[in-house]
Amino acid sequence: MEYILLIDTSDEKGLVYNVSKILFEYGLNIENNSEYVDKEVNKFFMRTVLSGEVDESELLADIKEILPNDAHVKLSTKQKKDIVILATKETHCLGDILIRYHSGELKANIKAVVANHETLKDLVEKFDIPFVCVSHEGLSREDHEQKVIEAIKEFDYELIVLAKYMRILTPTFVKTFPKQILNIHHSFLPAFIGANPYKQAFQRGVKLIGATAHYVTDDLDEGPIIAQDIVRVDHTFSWQNMRDAGRNVEKVVLSNALNLLLKDKVFIYGNKTVVL
Amino acid sequence: MEYILLIDTSDEKGLVYNVSKILFEYGLNIENNSEYVDKEVNKFFMRTVLSGEVDESELLADIKEILPNDAHVKLSTKQKKDIVILATKETHCLGDILIRYHSGELKANIKAVVANHETLKDLVEKFDIPFVCVSHEGLSREDHEQKVIEAIKEFDYELIVLAKYMRILTPTFVKTFPKQILNIHHSFLPAFIGANPYKQAFQRGVKLIGATAHYVTDDLDEGPIIAQDIVRVDHTFSWQNMRDAGRNVEKVVLSNALNLLLKDKVFIYGNKTVVL
Amino acid sequence: MEYILLIDTSDEKGLVYNVSKILFEYGLNIENNSEYVDKEVNKFFMRTVLSGEVDESELLADIKEILPNDAHVKLSTKQKKDIVILATKETHCLGDILIRYHSGELKANIKAVVANHETLKDLVEKFDIPFVCVSHEGLSREDHEQKVIEAIKEFDYELIVLAKYMRILTPTFVKTFPKQILNIHHSFLPAFIGANPYKQAFQRGVKLIGATAHYVTDDLDEGPIIAQDIVRVDHTFSWQNMRDAGRNVEKVVLSNALNLLLKDKVFIYGNKTVVL
Amino acid sequence: MEYILLIDTSDEKGLVYNVSKILFEYGLNIENNSEYVDKEVNKFFMRTVLSGEVDESELLADIKEILPNDAHVKLSTKQKKDIVILATKETHCLGDILIRYHSGELKANIKAVVANHETLKDLVEKFDIPFVCVSHEGLSREDHEQKVIEAIKEFDYELIVLAKYMRILTPTFVKTFPKQILNIHHSFLPAFIGANPYKQAFQRGVKLIGATAHYVTDDLDEGPIIAQDIVRVDHTFSWQNMRDAGRNVEKVVLSNALNLLLKDKVFIYGNKTVVL
Repeated sequence: MEYILLIDTSDEKGLVYNVSKILFEYGLNIENNSEYVDKEVNKFFMRTVLSGEVDESELLADIKEILPNDAHVKLSTKQKKDIVILATKETHCLGDILIRYHSGELKANIKAVVANHETLKDLVEKFDIPFVCVSHEGLSREDHEQKVIEAIKEFDYELIVLAKYMRILTPTFVKTFPKQILNIHHSFLPAFIGANPYKQAFQRGVKLIGATAHYVTDDLDEGPIIAQDIVRVDHTFSWQNMRDAGRNVEKVVLSNALNLLLKDKVFIYGNKTVVL
Repeated sequence: MEYILLIDTSDEKGLVYNVSKILFEYGLNIENNSEYVDKEVNKFFMRTVLSGEVDESELLADIKEILPNDAHVKLSTKQKKDIVILATKETHCLGDILIRYHSGELKANIKAVVANHETLKDLVEKFDIPFVCVSHEGLSREDHEQKVIEAIKEFDYELIVLAKYMRILTPTFVKTFPKQILNIHHSFLPAFIGANPYKQAFQRGVKLIGATAHYVTDDLDEGPIIAQDIVRVDHTFSWQNMRDAGRNVEKVVLSNALNLLLKDKVFIYGNKTVVL
Repeated sequence: MEYILLIDTSDEKGLVYNVSKILFEYGLNIENNSEYVDKEVNKFFMRTVLSGEVDESELLADIKEILPNDAHVKLSTKQKKDIVILATKETHCLGDILIRYHSGELKANIKAVVANHETLKDLVEKFDIPFVCVSHEGLSREDHEQKVIEAIKEFDYELIVLAKYMRILTPTFVKTFPKQILNIHHSFLPAFIGANPYKQAFQRGVKLIGATAHYVTDDLDEGPIIAQDIVRVDHTFSWQNMRDAGRNVEKVVLSNALNLLLKDKVFIYGNKTVVL
Repeated sequence: MEYILLIDTSDEKGLVYNVSKILFEYGLNIENNSEYVDKEVNKFFMRTVLSGEVDESELLADIKEILPNDAHVKLSTKQKKDIVILATKETHCLGDILIRYHSGELKANIKAVVANHETLKDLVEKFDIPFVCVSHEGLSREDHEQKVIEAIKEFDYELIVLAKYMRILTPTFVKTFPKQILNIHHSFLPAFIGANPYKQAFQRGVKLIGATAHYVTDDLDEGPIIAQDIVRVDHTFSWQNMRDAGRNVEKVVLSNALNLLLKDKVFIYGNKTVVL
């Protein structure tokens, strides 16, 4: 059996010693071990891939005992996680995830796609995945969101993936799924605020267009960054060409970030991540 | 003899035909020709490398005659341009330019380095380049800037390169050197405003750090973008490591942008550039 | 009506003048014009986007008349091109193209997917595209290839896309579709020859994995390069992780190269391309 | 006091536990700890930054006692390392290192530059560094190399940096400085073998040019890779432009790799590196 042990705690002397002592006593093999200490805020992070046979709750209890009180400990297995995807009309991010799902590369069960338009229904159902349309028309933001939350909760999920879901989320939504929401966001150097950032980027003549995948912890486009990348553009790109180039990098970055989450490689602390 | 013909004008039918007719009649060889038309704003840009022997002012007059009234035409040669560099204390951008200058790779004559600290004097003088320190201590921003302008004007220059010059420039300075100031600026996805952006980037856990080289047309950190690039960082980077990584990309981007300007490859229009 | 005029010829003085004269006389608007001259081999390339109404064959005849004898001239329209895709078992490149096709982003009609395994049949047929399996089992390379050629010829095509088609092509195949075959190939710094290059790359500890999209003009993995990109890896990547990372960059590079071909932006000469 | 503990050994159960026990007993603080296990070859690597006061040889002896017999253990401090640079005529890599040295950013003492031409003497001596020219003229490869080895041995060194040293090294040279030679090498996708790879890359129309920094363990251009990067080029680049672009990426990659070595972050095993 293979386990992933995740520890996130305030740092103190002897942590590695004490944890590795327990793992040794349980006869577990350390297949892979990554640690990170942030001395400035005195935080310790550890991700250990273990093989062996143990009583999981006993092991967890023993580890918790020797850790500081604020410690978070999790024992995960390498099985596929359940996810629900939220989308609107755009195909690029969702399509990339669907293809990975179909090929078996994605370490996740897509339980449903929830969207506020019917546009993607045809594509999603090709892959035998439930598609739920929750139209926002005629509803207040709060009422619509409530219906989306209900729609999600009809399914099993460990993670909500916003694959270009073009609705602003309220704090209620975010609090309903704490540290469970992954979002992808175009990003620019410099930043452009307001409507149609691609037009603004075009008018400023940017040479790079980026994408940022992040946890949603507060408002939609903020939160701890998980992965980022850029693509090069030049003056021959119309703003539509820039948008298309941006879509390419969005889909790659979202899929990379999703893979990191599915492998339990990402810790959150403060407004940042540690990727081990 | 080799010339670079630069045309920047509102677009109209027959432009290419009319210009190439004149070049043909003058017996000039087109070594290389790049054009760009922005249909939305009806602008036409052309950069042509020509070989042959002509009366330059006659050729320019003939070309201007067949172009719209708002046309800018310039006939440049491939000779080295005179530049003055402004700096403060940091070595990375200035050092990269000095090494290129020493090796003969830089198509420029560095006429002087003007700085508001003495720190770089020793380095600059190793390369037999005049170093002028104009300290800002005890002076108002306006008075200091006036002295810097005077210091620059002691030398020949076609271009002012801000190689990490850490002073805010007033509109007076910018107007004194219209379309002649090149700046390098760190940049981030997302953007961080205010003091120590590297600390902010660190706290947000960015995965990329960028650099943007641009003309200074208004305030210091805005203006048409010429070149951009990024470097990858991760959670193991302290903010000082991020700053060091940022310096690497700053020096490369500034040198690349400077090379483009020295080869007369950059047109400005609106708040953007066309690089031909 | 919008046209794309493509000229590929040996260079001579007055070319631009003579061509633009004809376009001017036909009353055509130049929406966009790109040229490239390679002085070393005396070649001239031009891609011009034109708007207006003309008798196409008359225009072509007039242009040919003023060009050198070796000139190739083509007048293309902006309509979608017909393509046939060849594949084997892998999903990543094919899937990316299918998603773009479904969303309408791809400027092509996929007429069929021809494969030497049944693996991809289910995926392809979801998108209502004919899937033809031509198994190689029990056949000589030549006989199998002949059947593949016949299968392709059942459909209309301007372009053959090898989306991870894992069969070696004979010169017969390549000659059957001259300058019509696009391939994607992993690539490494340094290069690894022989079986399982990912294992070799892993054993050498490469930090980058690349992908190269190219025309097939001779053997499968050579030919004029159209697009390239890389992805970063490190010692924590198993060779399977490296292969997965390589797949990501393969699909992006193949789609980008395909877009360039569909927009008539790529000229071939010698063993290289000019992308205008 | 700050130490860097480096362990490189065959893997066995309890390693982390046993080492951390000793560090704990010595009262040392773990500031930072990175490990990597390669299960396929059963190798374990650990780099630990420690703070505290210890008897270094006692600590080393205690650690060695609990490790497998094939273990390599090293206790390094954060002080600057002594390096000797070899060069020929090109300025870009050497210049970048000299500028970092001058600014104090480089964590190394440059004890000397040894070159087979006089070209760089003027530049090196600006920075008050001994320059030794060992001309190869009139000498056999072996005799010249012997004189270079003698020249190097006049100085203290922990590391030899080949900053575009354009001479082929014999196995004798490599064995004289085991795991101590850092080299930078242009690299291409695909690879080009033989004279003037830039011309070959130009003729093939590559879109990327790379650079690889590696240890020299056998012949000059092979050996475990430490760092790699690429720069984008296109058909408008002459082969000289490609070479210039390549120089940019060479200098950045060499400096990055050198920084990794100076921070004791690189382990060698087989023909690859682990960078912790």
